[in-house]
Amino acid sequence: MITVYTLGGYEEVGKNMTAIEYQGEVVIIDMGIRLDRVLIHEDVNFQQMSSRDLRKLGAIPDDSSLKNKKVVAIALSHGHLDHIGAIAKLAPHYPNVPIYGTPYTIKLAKGEVRSEQYFEVTNPMYETQYGEIVQVSENLAIEFVQITHSIPHSSMVVIHTPEGAVVYACDYKFDNHNPLGEKPDYKRLKEIGQEGVKVLIPESTRVAEETKTPSEASAKLLLEDFFYYEGMEEKGLIATTFASHIARLQELIEIANNMGRQAVLVGRSLAKYTGIAKQLGLIKMKGAKAVRSPNAVQKTLREVSQARENYLLIVTGHQGEPGAVLTRMANGELYDIGKDDTVVFSAGVIPNPLNIAQRYALETKLRMRSVRMVKDLHVSGHASREDHRYLIKLLNPENIVPAHGEFRMLTHYAELAEEEGYLIGKDVFVSRNGYKVDVR
Amino acid sequence: MITVYTLGGYEEVGKNMTAIEYQGEVVIIDMGIRLDRVLIHEDVNFQQMSSRDLRKLGAIPDDSSLKNKKVVAIALSHGHLDHIGAIAKLAPHYPNVPIYGTPYTIKLAKGEVRSEQYFEVTNPMYETQYGEIVQVSENLAIEFVQITHSIPHSSMVVIHTPEGAVVYACDYKFDNHNPLGEKPDYKRLKEIGQEGVKVLIPESTRVAEETKTPSEASAKLLLEDFFYYEGMEEKGLIATTFASHIARLQELIEIANNMGRQAVLVGRSLAKYTGIAKQLGLIKMKGAKAVRSPNAVQKTLREVSQARENYLLIVTGHQGEPGAVLTRMANGELYDIGKDDTVVFSAGVIPNPLNIAQRYALETKLRMRSVRMVKDLHVSGHASREDHRYLIKLLNPENIVPAHGEFRMLTHYAELAEEEGYLIGKDVFVSRNGYKVDVR
Amino acid sequence: MITVYTLGGYEEVGKNMTAIEYQGEVVIIDMGIRLDRVLIHEDVNFQQMSSRDLRKLGAIPDDSSLKNKKVVAIALSHGHLDHIGAIAKLAPHYPNVPIYGTPYTIKLAKGEVRSEQYFEVTNPMYETQYGEIVQVSENLAIEFVQITHSIPHSSMVVIHTPEGAVVYACDYKFDNHNPLGEKPDYKRLKEIGQEGVKVLIPESTRVAEETKTPSEASAKLLLEDFFYYEGMEEKGLIATTFASHIARLQELIEIANNMGRQAVLVGRSLAKYTGIAKQLGLIKMKGAKAVRSPNAVQKTLREVSQARENYLLIVTGHQGEPGAVLTRMANGELYDIGKDDTVVFSAGVIPNPLNIAQRYALETKLRMRSVRMVKDLHVSGHASREDHRYLIKLLNPENIVPAHGEFRMLTHYAELAEEEGYLIGKDVFVSRNGYKVDVR
Amino acid sequence: MITVYTLGGYEEVGKNMTAIEYQGEVVIIDMGIRLDRVLIHEDVNFQQMSSRDLRKLGAIPDDSSLKNKKVVAIALSHGHLDHIGAIAKLAPHYPNVPIYGTPYTIKLAKGEVRSEQYFEVTNPMYETQYGEIVQVSENLAIEFVQITHSIPHSSMVVIHTPEGAVVYACDYKFDNHNPLGEKPDYKRLKEIGQEGVKVLIPESTRVAEETKTPSEASAKLLLEDFFYYEGMEEKGLIATTFASHIARLQELIEIANNMGRQAVLVGRSLAKYTGIAKQLGLIKMKGAKAVRSPNAVQKTLREVSQARENYLLIVTGHQGEPGAVLTRMANGELYDIGKDDTVVFSAGVIPNPLNIAQRYALETKLRMRSVRMVKDLHVSGHASREDHRYLIKLLNPENIVPAHGEFRMLTHYAELAEEEGYLIGKDVFVSRNGYKVDVR
Repeated sequence: MITVYTLGGYEEVGKNMTAIEYQGEVVIIDMGIRLDRVLIHEDVNFQQMSSRDLRKLGAIPDDSSLKNKKVVAIALSHGHLDHIGAIAKLAPHYPNVPIYGTPYTIKLAKGEVRSEQYFEVTNPMYETQYGEIVQVSENLAIEFVQITHSIPHSSMVVIHTPEGAVVYACDYKFDNHNPLGEKPDYKRLKEIGQEGVKVLIPESTRVAEETKTPSEASAKLLLEDFFYYEGMEEKGLIATTFASHIARLQELIEIANNMGRQAVLVGRSLAKYTGIAKQLGLIKMKGAKAVRSPNAVQKTLREVSQARENYLLIVTGHQGEPGAVLTRMANGELYDIGKDDTVVFSAGVIPNPLNIAQRYALETKLRMRSVRMVKDLHVSGHASREDHRYLIKLLNPENIVPAHGEFRMLTHYAELAEEEGYLIGKDVFVSRNGYKVDVR
Repeated sequence: MITVYTLGGYEEVGKNMTAIEYQGEVVIIDMGIRLDRVLIHEDVNFQQMSSRDLRKLGAIPDDSSLKNKKVVAIALSHGHLDHIGAIAKLAPHYPNVPIYGTPYTIKLAKGEVRSEQYFEVTNPMYETQYGEIVQVSENLAIEFVQITHSIPHSSMVVIHTPEGAVVYACDYKFDNHNPLGEKPDYKRLKEIGQEGVKVLIPESTRVAEETKTPSEASAKLLLEDFFYYEGMEEKGLIATTFASHIARLQELIEIANNMGRQAVLVGRSLAKYTGIAKQLGLIKMKGAKAVRSPNAVQKTLREVSQARENYLLIVTGHQGEPGAVLTRMANGELYDIGKDDTVVFSAGVIPNPLNIAQRYALETKLRMRSVRMVKDLHVSGHASREDHRYLIKLLNPENIVPAHGEFRMLTHYAELAEEEGYLIGKDVFVSRNGYKVDVR
Repeated sequence: MITVYTLGGYEEVGKNMTAIEYQGEVVIIDMGIRLDRVLIHEDVNFQQMSSRDLRKLGAIPDDSSLKNKKVVAIALSHGHLDHIGAIAKLAPHYPNVPIYGTPYTIKLAKGEVRSEQYFEVTNPMYETQYGEIVQVSENLAIEFVQITHSIPHSSMVVIHTPEGAVVYACDYKFDNHNPLGEKPDYKRLKEIGQEGVKVLIPESTRVAEETKTPSEASAKLLLEDFFYYEGMEEKGLIATTFASHIARLQELIEIANNMGRQAVLVGRSLAKYTGIAKQLGLIKMKGAKAVRSPNAVQKTLREVSQARENYLLIVTGHQGEPGAVLTRMANGELYDIGKDDTVVFSAGVIPNPLNIAQRYALETKLRMRSVRMVKDLHVSGHASREDHRYLIKLLNPENIVPAHGEFRMLTHYAELAEEEGYLIGKDVFVSRNGYKVDVR
Repeated sequence: MITVYTLGGYEEVGKNMTAIEYQGEVVIIDMGIRLDRVLIHEDVNFQQMSSRDLRKLGAIPDDSSLKNKKVVAIALSHGHLDHIGAIAKLAPHYPNVPIYGTPYTIKLAKGEVRSEQYFEVTNPMYETQYGEIVQVSENLAIEFVQITHSIPHSSMVVIHTPEGAVVYACDYKFDNHNPLGEKPDYKRLKEIGQEGVKVLIPESTRVAEETKTPSEASAKLLLEDFFYYEGMEEKGLIATTFASHIARLQELIEIANNMGRQAVLVGRSLAKYTGIAKQLGLIKMKGAKAVRSPNAVQKTLREVSQARENYLLIVTGHQGEPGAVLTRMANGELYDIGKDDTVVFSAGVIPNPLNIAQRYALETKLRMRSVRMVKDLHVSGHASREDHRYLIKLLNPENIVPAHGEFRMLTHYAELAEEEGYLIGKDVFVSRNGYKVDVR
């Protein structure tokens, strides 16, 4: 029997955490935060809070059901904060248990640990390559299978057990034209499927979209089509996207180079994510520069504003986050944004009322400054219904526990599973935060 | 020829201001603010800002087209902030011009003037009775006709001119069962219609609702039906509604009396609006009390929390406004709100992204504290399509300039007018902030 | 152990059917149809089809899991078609098994049986009074408890078993001011709760509405407020509502009498439902008449059109159903409907794409004929979240199986149950059509 | 002075018709139908109806204001029915007036004339090449400028007058990668702009989308990404798209060829549009075939169903239109569609309640037959806000009259124009069906 502890991300898109138990030994997958639960409180300093207080806010998973369990490893699927953001708060509950992940993921996790102000984290952290199989106990081994998503070095986490594999497939898309050259490892997935998958734990965020998610190549086409459009003769060009979306940033840098403009990345998180990416050879910054310190930012933006037609600014703030560069520009700080500037949103609006309000405030302020806005030059990083159907066909799992969504999203996944011959309650299980599912 | 200056409220629900010019003389109707334009900026202190800065934020109307005009009077239709909230900022542009309104309206306007910190307002302010006709120049006279709305002493403002009457009908409903005993003065409206209406300036906020707005008696029934429901045996009962909605507050106080509980009104704005209402004999506070000072609030809430079953709390904060009593309770301040408490929202959600977000944050926090919530025990104070049709029939105006709405709402009103035989551009005019309409 | 067969209505609002098994004996509750599954097919004659073909369309429940079971009784909760509409198709599967229900329900069910053209139904049918306890086998007894809903003689069906009661609470509201004088039997429900409820099977249709459903008295107020509105001086007045909503029809007839107009009910189903209601003394038709035969309809409408101001027409067709009276009027048949007529919709729009389209077509045609329309003078007949909470408190059931809704609605009910201390999968069960739930 | 008669398409997306008058001479642009106004009536045979009856239904424009005017030419912008579908009904009002359009457009218009059963159309019809300037009177000349849209040979219609050009820009996108090789003639547009544009009449359908419309190359990428997806091993593949969307059909045929399947186009309208396209060399049907006659359709589909893996079916019916091939398949006719089939919708859902209902019925039926569905592999053919801004910059028109949309869409266009320095009522005019705009 394998037990799946559905600890976080089963009632929301956020604070993902799942644990797999086999004969008394446990592997934890992901330790994420739920940012909107922090955001609804003012004056909350995440870094300075205890896990107990954060749990009360609903900001991090409640892992109390793992108390007294023998945890042998923690695996991180990829580097987004809803998957690694609680590591500094929860890993201390499991002292000395090793943490594994792909290189980009582990480097980001180390950053989380360094900036933590309440706990000290002493767990060893290991960068693992795709394909490597890490034996973490006599019975259990971990493997990271390459997959595509909106951040580099994403993986499906496979826990090999004597009863078959457990495949954790949260945050992925099947992208055959990723500009960074990353590719889904269909071959290995098919092999694992043939060896036998006991449980599949897939995301369900976009399973209601009855289509196949477009490739990142589509986003590239949208961007190129806009930027290479002859005759608009824009002066100021300001793009904003997810700081961790290295592929998208790479596209923007190339576009800037082709247009004879210099790409300038402004903002702390842009510097952080591209810095690590550069170190790992994941991004080519040729022709571009990233500025981070307050002084450098001010100086650079002053220069840019004098000769806007020479630059493509890439900034943080696509959701109107307080303190982000674009938000501050809209408030009249840093740069006299105005009628000579075009802001390109290469990101959707995250459908949470707080985000919607922040983005609304941002757009209202930009509109009052006569800034031109171009939206939705973006495609999602999450699998749609037909991608999920394909994953089921590749892996042919015995059981499915949908994850990474609100209850209604898990339910939509269950309906897909029924189309593929599964039965709710028998071999596809809709669970909730804090529950567990016993798979026989 | 009469000229209608459509200064504010013609592209939004907010900052209403209209001016009527006849042979060089001008009467201004309403001077309101647009709160959401203040809210998107943090650290803005409305009371301390100049009219110039507030105009730049889009928070108050731009009245520059009235510069050098001979303004002979300012009329206030009713006491809501989107109609009187800019008085302290804009009245100084018209020194010594007298301000007229019904008693409750003028008392509230004086409060605005008192709390102003940037300007000094010296205009004389006069309380006017329904029916009284105030001659403000040789050619022009003002009359306030009784109407029903969600604040006492609401009026339709009529400007009598030699070419016929101009009727300003913003913020009204036709309510034949208002609990305060207020009644629309159908008879006078009909008379004015027979004497001849040159221009009607109606609100358009809810004209797309193809119904008749329910009476406030409907809200009373909803509340009674909920509160008198046998067997729920609630302990803590907390109601929240608009502080200026005296009729609703009266209903809640009566309900508390009938239940053998004491109604306790907590919050500064509740104390302000009910205080003036009491002074004018508009509300019976028998059995109830209002607490206002921070100390009194703390002491009272401590007492209430010891014996919740004896009280009906009535608090501010139905939209989750920062600093309001309910918002603070949800943050864990003032009162240990929890699973023994039921919060009754006797108000809808104002459909602006910022409000939606604040209300969402409020509800999320209350839910995390296991508070029971009951919503939508409320009816609107605004006329629907069929009420508007009736007003057109009563007044039979020669021309119509719809107001008090976004462009699409004005447009919907124009479509109604077309059904009643008007023609867009000929005798019904869709205008915008800062434009004027010449009516011949 | 009690087994609940969730046969229909667990993935939709429609075709309700549930069965309760105790020690090999089965009681069936309701046999409904799902009209929209018939509607998407043209040229389908429901009356002439076999149960097998209808099952394939998804129009009636699949009861095959009851094959070879010992069914001892069929109980009908109330007379709506989604609860009794499949009786003529499915009762023949259980020959001679007696059918029970309140008088109005049984008379309607007999009508269904009479108009059936494919099957012959021979089951005995018994009119049962509220309070009567019918012993249907040594172990099982049935009781109909009075409740309020949008059709007379509605009931909660209680199956008394040696392990406690099973309470089927689909289609109800708690209305303390029903104009027909019907009242929820709170006292009996409380007693049953004290005796012990093993399973509660509640509807979930409107559980997401976080309020208490307004009383039918609210609808009465909306209608009176509209019709008694002085000064509109309408000529033709045409109201449309659910033909089975006897309370609403009674209100409309009283209003007509008070206005000095004659209420004229036009349409076959209006005649059917009011005919049986009159026979049972449920409606007072004084001053009104119902016309049914095509000739009478034509003659009457010709008369009405000559002197519209003397009548209040009450017609079928509020959803734009093909063949209904209002739909035909809009097509230019029967009556020259036009600018002198006002159509009052005393019904919401049923949120199904086919209904929405039919209603849209109806409104478009009426608008092209310059007919005035007034909408939403209506309140729902279904319990909201806070009513459901009250029912849980009254009955204190050991287990809950939410019914009468799409998956997401059942899920919303489960969340309410969790607030009240239940646990999904332990004592509150989200099931689906064709599944069963074993309750120990 | 130039007068713009805004006859149709100014209150809807449909029945487009505009007329330009200069010194008593009139050029008419487009004569379209509004299909949903025909659809809400059953048993209406469009071909057999008079223009008078169709006008009463709102299905074709009311051109009565052109009575007694000297009409010198009729110009057709492109071949969609909402632009040419009323030609057989309205051209007879202008006997002998010549009709001009690009070759594909004229050939389609001739088809409309041939299938007409009520009127006889005798107007001469001329195929005009891009670039050709047709002098239609001493003062007026017509030119068709190449543009991209979802049908071949689309044009912007330019009326050259002594006061400057009138540019009619309805139904266009700026697509720089159209798979058919069609290109917007930026150069000529810029020239015309420099010569002087008196009036621009642009579509407003998607002006509220604050982006640039993606190229048809994006749709191609979506389709390829889906169809070339390794490992799904579908058997039956059925694609459905707009019959007139020759570029999309070309992509599907190429995909079929690359997959080693035969593309088979089934349905009358597919045969019609591809037939004319082939004749003009616009589509390469190599490897594909189109079947049209009922017998051929039946025979072909029987063959396909025996060896589904060898074919890519391309069928009509993406909106669930009654009588279309896919609709009939879903009803169980023509082909035993089922679990081995995948239906690819290369089209969005047209947002009209009737369409939504038909599409819903289609999908419900397909789902009940276990057909796999893939949706939204599609991009729009209409310009978004940023494309419109570019057109304004290219042409620099003196005046703008937005067209091709509901009132709110025209309004959105007006707001864009205001951003570009125009003023509502002064040089940008929101008109309505049947009105005219005098441009001085």
